[in-house]
Formats: sequence, structure tokens, C-alpha cells
Amino acid sequence: MGRQTFIFHNKPVVLSAFSIVGEKEGQGPMGHWFDHVSDDDTFGEPTWEKSESKMLRLAVEGAIKKSGKTKDDIDILLSGDLLNQIMSSSFMARDIDIPFIGLYGACSTMTESLMMASILTDGGYCDSAVNCASSHFCSAERQFRMPLEHGNQKPPCAPSTVIGAGAMVVSGKAGKRHCSGRNTGSDNRAGVITVDCATVGKIMDAGIKDSNEMGAAMAPAAVDTILAHFRDTGRSFSHYDMVITGDLGFTGKAIAMDIMKQAGISENQMREKFQDCGTLIYDKADGFEGGGSGCGCSASIFAGYIYKRMQEKSLKRVLMLSTGALLSTISPFQGESIPGIAHAVSLEVSEDD
Amino acid sequence: MGRQTFIFHNKPVVLSAFSIVGEKEGQGPMGHWFDHVSDDDTFGEPTWEKSESKMLRLAVEGAIKKSGKTKDDIDILLSGDLLNQIMSSSFMARDIDIPFIGLYGACSTMTESLMMASILTDGGYCDSAVNCASSHFCSAERQFRMPLEHGNQKPPCAPSTVIGAGAMVVSGKAGKRHCSGRNTGSDNRAGVITVDCATVGKIMDAGIKDSNEMGAAMAPAAVDTILAHFRDTGRSFSHYDMVITGDLGFTGKAIAMDIMKQAGISENQMREKFQDCGTLIYDKADGFEGGGSGCGCSASIFAGYIYKRMQEKSLKRVLMLSTGALLSTISPFQGESIPGIAHAVSLEVSEDD
Repeated sequence: MGRQTFIFHNKPVVLSAFSIVGEKEGQGPMGHWFDHVSDDDTFGEPTWEKSESKMLRLAVEGAIKKSGKTKDDIDILLSGDLLNQIMSSSFMARDIDIPFIGLYGACSTMTESLMMASILTDGGYCDSAVNCASSHFCSAERQFRMPLEHGNQKPPCAPSTVIGAGAMVVSGKAGKRHCSGRNTGSDNRAGVITVDCATVGKIMDAGIKDSNEMGAAMAPAAVDTILAHFRDTGRSFSHYDMVITGDLGFTGKAIAMDIMKQAGISENQMREKFQDCGTLIYDKADGFEGGGSGCGCSASIFAGYIYKRMQEKSLKRVLMLSTGALLSTISPFQGESIPGIAHAVSLEVSEDD
Repeated sequence: MGRQTFIFHNKPVVLSAFSIVGEKEGQGPMGHWFDHVSDDDTFGEPTWEKSESKMLRLAVEGAIKKSGKTKDDIDILLSGDLLNQIMSSSFMARDIDIPFIGLYGACSTMTESLMMASILTDGGYCDSAVNCASSHFCSAERQFRMPLEHGNQKPPCAPSTVIGAGAMVVSGKAGKRHCSGRNTGSDNRAGVITVDCATVGKIMDAGIKDSNEMGAAMAPAAVDTILAHFRDTGRSFSHYDMVITGDLGFTGKAIAMDIMKQAGISENQMREKFQDCGTLIYDKADGFEGGGSGCGCSASIFAGYIYKRMQEKSLKRVLMLSTGALLSTISPFQGESIPGIAHAVSLEVSEDD
């Protein structure tokens, strides 16, 4: 380990990924990259929490199905979400019935769970793991802000919580054999996507106390993890086709670029290669001036857009960072600022494909 | 991996452990085993959430100090608690400034975090990790039941959330060298405690809907993990000096013993070797008829009582299971039953000590 970075010498394979989103997300610029767009944000359930849990379950089941495995082949399920006591994940895991590790990293959960799944499979602790994360606008609004019925208004800088989930199946050696088999089939030109390293984040607190300013709260943590990753690996923006953060949104992305510029990173490189899921998922003109946020934002974009672009080899090396704001439902009322965290996972299309 | 069990071939060392509890816990039968008993349950903080976070920080700092390391030597911090968005852990981690992995496993967090710390150090992904968990009666009552000011009454079967935290420093190869060094000093007769394997739990839901009946809700999960551990390792109660669950309490422990009896485990062996932290921590006659519960129950007993008895070699092989009830603050109101989970970690006093 180089200080904060885990190196995966056995390069675990991301066998499959599945992304699922709600109606508005499906209408956005990323719409065609998702595996499933629901026209019913309730997912047929009587409460928003159960809707989110159902959506997450569909993502997990979708990823397992696409991997060519069955539920019984998966050794571990790693999941988290934004709800109190990760309700979506716990109840999903009860229904899925795979040994379960619950995580909480707020919106950093997708890369947190992928990092842990990579460690488990790279180290030979298990053959296959599924990792996932979700968020739902309606459950998040009620929990962190106001119930929808209140008709709450928000400032333009405030991002909108994405209705979405993403899941990936990660496999070690056994998975690779399986994967080679799969790629001799109809999907034979698709790239084999491996995880080569991951950088675990430190908490950074910029002193932001306004929970509408999540992007500003998370930007310093995102940059800190990017710089730690570059320091530990000797890499730079040049190594990657894309460096993509989770849900900084428009304001947060601009702040992150300012901080990176101060750290000596060239603006041209950033303009070419730096992206943020929160700025990609919605059409800004459609009332989403702040962009998207929530665990489901990076989960659905990574499992949809990024994974598929890597499969078609139009992206070969990507550094993905899910970014989390670790406030609680009551910490703002106790005068606390918002701690941010970001975990980075480096994916590459395997050369021996 | 034998289905649900991780085998640690490099046997990571638990370099140190630190336990801290509140006043009532200090007055209980386990009082003399804890490293620190506070006579102020507020820990000098203005809110209960901050009190819990402060207590957790003291546990982490105490464990690091006892390990002979400094904060800068620790690569990863793994923590979780019961609060919404694991507020105690997130704010503790902000102050501690070590790369952070947030977990949510309700009261199963102590063994969940120890298991993950063992994987990271055994696999060589990092040299040293600190894992921990906490709970606080006053923050838990407000969040899951009623604020203290309400003077809520509870049925005798309901356990009382422990004010307590525990932390352990786990090290891989580098740690072992360090540990051998340490044991040539004044503490030279203390046993070297290693982690030899861990079993990750599945969620079991017994259909219990009354959140006062946590022990009953968790007992099937505890037994399921114990039986999975025995199946995967070929071991039985005979292998261990003690098999100890987290916080089933008196009712839950009795139920667990009934289920194990049905599975063919001898009553004599259970009577001799099966323990539950929730039944050990309080004096039943002192108004704690239900026993203790909360992440801090197993965290403080494992880091205090169990760790110290292993150091003095009066226990040489222990299977520790923290047991979690994965209900949320609102799931009972939505008619949901309580999913239970338990993770097991096997500790042994190293033979080559």
C-alpha cells in the first residue's frame, strides 16, 4: 500500500454492471446509457424507502444476471445508501440472501463498496462479490429536508438527489476464467474491465454549514483523494482518459478545478479529462441548475455510462471517485459543518483481452 | 474462503485494545475490565451525539497509544455506530484524520470492523488498521425511542443501550515485528493475540416486529453464523474456550440456546462455553432485567474483558460474534419486521508467543 492506495496485483474483473434510474434521469442526457429506466418512481411500493430498496434490489439482480452467474455463486454483497441505518440496503440484503457487509459512506458508497469488493476478490478472500449503492429523491428529501408534500423550494446551487442505483459484480481468478468464457460469445468484442488500484479517502472539512452547498463541502475531499492517488501511484491526469467525480455538481466541480489549478494541475488537462457525474445526469435547463447528487448519481453513471464506454473501449483508463458529504440528519442543527470524503477506484480495459 | 468464512493465513495481530464505558457500566460486574470508566456520561459535550463521538475518539486514541504506535502509523480507520448517517463515527474520523472506511452493521459493527481490518492487514493491503464501534444510551433512546426527558418506560425484556466504545489496533507482518518487540518489555508475559478466521453473516428475519424484542430478532442470525462458522471450519464448541455473542440479552441468549439445541449442540457445552456480552455487562438486579445492547456492548466487552483475559491466557481461543438488528428509525412504522445479522471473528493466543 502506498500510504492511501491499495494495489491490486491480481487485477479483479468487473464482470458486469447494471444501472437503473427514475423517469427524470431517464429523460436526461445520459438516458440511453442506463440499463433500465423506470416510468414509475414508486417502483410499485407503498413507501419511498421501500421504492428505493426495490430499485436497489433490481440493480443487484440485474448485475448478477448479466454476469452469467446466479445468486448462489456470489459470496458477498456490499451495499450502502443515504437512509438512516441504510434501510434500503438492509432490507434489500434481507430479500437477496447473500452474506452481507453494510457500508456507510454517504454518496461515496459506490467506490467505497467497489474498493472493498476488489480487496476481497483480489486477496482471494472470496471468488465473487457484488457491490452497489442507491439514492432516491423522495426518500432523501423527506429525511434530510422536507417531505415532498411541503413543496419545499431550494436555491439554484442545491443539487437534486438522483433516483438511481448501480451494481457491479467483481470477480477474482475464478471470475477471470468465467469472463474469458463469456467473451467468446456474442459479446466477444467487449473489453474486459479490471480494477488495478484504489485510493481510500480522508475526511476533509471545509467548514461549510449550509446543506444546500454539498458540492462545495465535498470538493476539497475529492481533490485531496485525487492528489493522494497521483502521489501514491506516480500518475497524473495524463495516465487517464477520464477522471470523474461523483456528485460535486456545477458549483462543486468549479471549486474542485480551482483547487486543482492551485495544486499545479493544468487547466487544459482538466477541461479535457475531468468530469463530474452530477453535471452529466440532468439537463441543466430542465430545472436542475445545481446538477445531481446522491449515492445513486455516481452508482448509476459508473455502472451505466462509464462501464459501457469502457466495454466499447472508447475509454480505456478511468479514475472514478464517488464523493460523500458525511452530515447527518441532525448534525446541521447542532451547528456542525459538513465533513466530506471521496474514495477513488482506477479501472482499466485489460490489455490481454 | 469456505463459503462464508475468510481464513487469515498470515494471522494478523491485535496489537492493542481499548475499552471505555459510562458510569452505570463501570458499576456493573465487568467494571474492572474496562480501560476507562467515565463518571460523566456527557463526556463534557453539549449534545449526546457529540458525547458519543468524543467517547469513540477516546477509545481510538487509547488503542493507538497502547499499541505503541502513533496516529501517523495507522493506515486505515474502520468505524460504525447506531446513529443516523453514523454521526459519531464520521465526526470522530474527521478529528482523527486517518483514511476512513465507514461501516453500518448496527450492533454487529465491532466484529464487522475487526473482520475488515483483518482482511486489510492479512492481505497486505495495509500495515496497521484501527477498528472500533460505539453506542450511547442517551443518543440511542432519542433516536430510536423517546428523548430521555419523556421518561419513557420499557418492558423488562427490553435491553438497555450500553454507553460504551471499544477499539482495536490490528497489524500485519510489520505489526508482528513490532509486537514481538513490545513483548520483550514490562508486558512480556502477555499473550500475542491473532485473528485466524472470520465468518460473515447472512441476514435472518424471524418476523419480530416489536423493537423491544431485539434479542429475539437477532438470535436466529447469531446461531446461523455460529453454525456456518462450524460448517466452514470443521470446528465445534470444543475448539473454543468461549463462544460469545454481542447483545442478545437474557431473552435472546435463551432463544439462541434453544435453536442451537435443536441443531444438535449439547446443552452442557453451551452452559460451559456460551456467553453473551449483553448478559454480562449489567447487574440484573440493578434494573437491567433485559441486559445490555448497542454496538458499544460487544465493543467494550471484547476490547476489555475478552482481550485482557486472552492476554493473561485464561482464554486461549474465543469466537466473538457481534449481533446486529438492522431496523431503521422508521421501518417499524412501515410495518417491517427486524432483520438480524451477526459476524464472527475467531481470536487465538498465538502459539509462538
